Amino acid sequence: MKISLQICLGILIPLLLTACSSTSQKPVKAPKNVVLMIGDGMGFAHVKAYRVYADDLSTDIVEPLSIDPLLVGSVSTDSIRMLCDDPEHNCWRDPGGFTDSASSATAYATGQDTLVGQLSVSPSGETMTTILEDAKEHGKSTGLIATSSITHASPAAFGAHVKSRSNASEIANQYFDNQLNGKPVIDVLYGGGLDYLQRADRNLVAEFQQAGYEVALNRTSLLELTSGQQLGLFAANGMPKAWDRPNTMPSLAEMTQSALKTMDKNPQGFFLMVEGSQIDWAAHDNSVVGVVSEMEDFIAAIDEVLDFARRDRETLVLIVADHETGGMSLGRDGIYRWNPKPIRGMQATPIGMVYQFIKGEESLSRIAADKLPFELTGSEIELLDAVNRDEDAALDALTSIFNNRTFTGWSSTGHTGVDVPLYAFGPGSGHFHGVMQNEVLGQTLWEVFLPE
Amino acid sequence: MKISLQICLGILIPLLLTACSSTSQKPVKAPKNVVLMIGDGMGFAHVKAYRVYADDLSTDIVEPLSIDPLLVGSVSTDSIRMLCDDPEHNCWRDPGGFTDSASSATAYATGQDTLVGQLSVSPSGETMTTILEDAKEHGKSTGLIATSSITHASPAAFGAHVKSRSNASEIANQYFDNQLNGKPVIDVLYGGGLDYLQRADRNLVAEFQQAGYEVALNRTSLLELTSGQQLGLFAANGMPKAWDRPNTMPSLAEMTQSALKTMDKNPQGFFLMVEGSQIDWAAHDNSVVGVVSEMEDFIAAIDEVLDFARRDRETLVLIVADHETGGMSLGRDGIYRWNPKPIRGMQATPIGMVYQFIKGEESLSRIAADKLPFELTGSEIELLDAVNRDEDAALDALTSIFNNRTFTGWSSTGHTGVDVPLYAFGPGSGHFHGVMQNEVLGQTLWEVFLPE
Repeated sequence: MKISLQICLGILIPLLLTACSSTSQKPVKAPKNVVLMIGDGMGFAHVKAYRVYADDLSTDIVEPLSIDPLLVGSVSTDSIRMLCDDPEHNCWRDPGGFTDSASSATAYATGQDTLVGQLSVSPSGETMTTILEDAKEHGKSTGLIATSSITHASPAAFGAHVKSRSNASEIANQYFDNQLNGKPVIDVLYGGGLDYLQRADRNLVAEFQQAGYEVALNRTSLLELTSGQQLGLFAANGMPKAWDRPNTMPSLAEMTQSALKTMDKNPQGFFLMVEGSQIDWAAHDNSVVGVVSEMEDFIAAIDEVLDFARRDRETLVLIVADHETGGMSLGRDGIYRWNPKPIRGMQATPIGMVYQFIKGEESLSRIAADKLPFELTGSEIELLDAVNRDEDAALDALTSIFNNRTFTGWSSTGHTGVDVPLYAFGPGSGHFHGVMQNEVLGQTLWEVFLPE
Repeated sequence: MKISLQICLGILIPLLLTACSSTSQKPVKAPKNVVLMIGDGMGFAHVKAYRVYADDLSTDIVEPLSIDPLLVGSVSTDSIRMLCDDPEHNCWRDPGGFTDSASSATAYATGQDTLVGQLSVSPSGETMTTILEDAKEHGKSTGLIATSSITHASPAAFGAHVKSRSNASEIANQYFDNQLNGKPVIDVLYGGGLDYLQRADRNLVAEFQQAGYEVALNRTSLLELTSGQQLGLFAANGMPKAWDRPNTMPSLAEMTQSALKTMDKNPQGFFLMVEGSQIDWAAHDNSVVGVVSEMEDFIAAIDEVLDFARRDRETLVLIVADHETGGMSLGRDGIYRWNPKPIRGMQATPIGMVYQFIKGEESLSRIAADKLPFELTGSEIELLDAVNRDEDAALDALTSIFNNRTFTGWSSTGHTGVDVPLYAFGPGSGHFHGVMQNEVLGQTLWEVFLPE
């Protein structure tokens, strides 16, 4: 079997770095910076699908992803879900229950478990300090980036404290009102969610501006930001998926690069959380195309961070998920094969096509024919054209075509309890290994990053 | 520039050793012994299901399994399946194809890929030496243990060389005929498969006995074995699943303990492969009860090995799977919970009940009622009693009751392409980390164990 020297070196160098950092036994200084990257809903199948999709077909190996050599274990997310049945804190743990983005991000942000749906408050509603807030206390810069609304559960657990993840206005208020020494604790906020910050009852965009924040509402403005406090809001709610995104909106990698550029100026260091938010949403839709689109966006952002961390040498990078979504598998119904070919060359995701269908006059099969890298069969055209102008039915029809053609299996439209992958790089990465409970991972990260 | 993968690895492994020895605490000597444990079909979901099932309900955490702290990465199993379309070795790799037990065990046994269905022969049929054979060349003891027939694909890849895994008689013949210095290369063989060794055309049990092997055909005899060469055959074909096994048959842990006891006497050390064979079979049946039964059997065997390795300190233990089976998930159909309770206290697995049903006169609901730790509902009794005395239909009915009650999802009755967990313990374990291709894992194991 022949491979190119470049591929050999491509495997060799990351392996050398990882192997040597993991066998090193000398005491490690606390990392100056932490970048915590959360692939929402990202299980082992989602990563594998992207690896096979991204494969260089001109070689006879499946090229490893940049994160592959950094895999150090997995996270159990939980199978402990706390349940309460009365207001007097009579809570117990359900060993078979699964977490959601709110309680899992709370575990990462605070090192403590809480009830499903709650954000950095205890089961009885008491505020639990977050690692981001403590980083700010230590004089570090702080940032949150998501492709969902920035008020969504995963970022919100780091900068807000609310009983209900659905209270987006309160979360947005707290992003401004949660202050230290007269300034919001979060320096950099990028994502969707303009509608939650610019409201009839309160205009937080203006308040942030008055407090000295630069504001960007599109990609061009984002790339011109220079100050240490930045608010970037690129969609009314969640951003479109990467493959549906207009070029007036930044990629997750561009947001990440911009944040690193400004936050790296702080000599005290920084804490940055970057979320690939919509891997989860695509998996809830059982959309394999959506998963690959969002994995591509997330992996490109990871590559920015790893490039930075390799140069910087003082940055701990953790890449995790909050839970698995969809019970996704490569292969289904006894077929021993997964076929990425129908996805390669896609110009849109199913949900992007569905939005176009719902708003317009064109038939779904006509819209699809423009975006697909393959010819639809007669029965596929019939399937799509039988759909009324209904979002769910149109999405089901489109996703079923891709699931059938790629042989992608799904067991749920919700979260599952299977462990998710854990990747670590940089100083302190040796503390992360084996199967870790999500709250233990949060505790460990805090102890390694801010030991005093 | 093109180089062979072997050359790439030839550069990579010594470099890794050199580069890392400067940072590691002490240079690592080659392990004296290797125990390679293969959970056939064991994905992350199978492990998680057993962890939640085995949870101590009196505490408020889910207790980690003994293997959890040893998770060091995952194995990609492949998504490369070699395909050939002519007898002149015109083979190519299908980046989306999945492996089977034969080609994956070949990758572990020889460090090389081959076609699905083949055992330690190249695509064109040439013999590829196995790590077990090389261990014997090095004067070490060698052993294979399985709960399937011992002639099944996973063990066979270590001790036989055939084009087709289904040729059980030829595999059995080679177990005796594959010799070094006038003795079979395998010292210890335990499992099912008496019918393949004791045949009308050839009685290999007698041949092994004449060659000085002790033979055990039941649990009591196994526990009395003392010599260095042992043949233990405990079922005509595959052994019953652990929860269906009569007490005249040993557990996988007892077989493992017996092998360790005798093989440890060799001052040169040993190579032992232990397979939890029927995790895969249970998953092919989409039987969550079967998976938990076989995980329990496998984990108990692992605990024997880890106890030994912790005392011995010269044994490298690798725990892997050959591929995932079933696209199993905890949670299904939008339910955010997995419930192990219906499995706790089971007296049999579905396939065990089905065999009883097929052979006898009793109704399936009557048989089930005796074995189940819960009361069947009226509609469950109806479902079971609607089944004719047909094996597949009876199995489907029983497994559906457990999948519904536990909320277990499955996407396939076959293998899937999702990566499987990789655990390592003992001297040399630092060489195993990140995402490893199955053939690279085989190469690395060989290099670490038998460096000269």
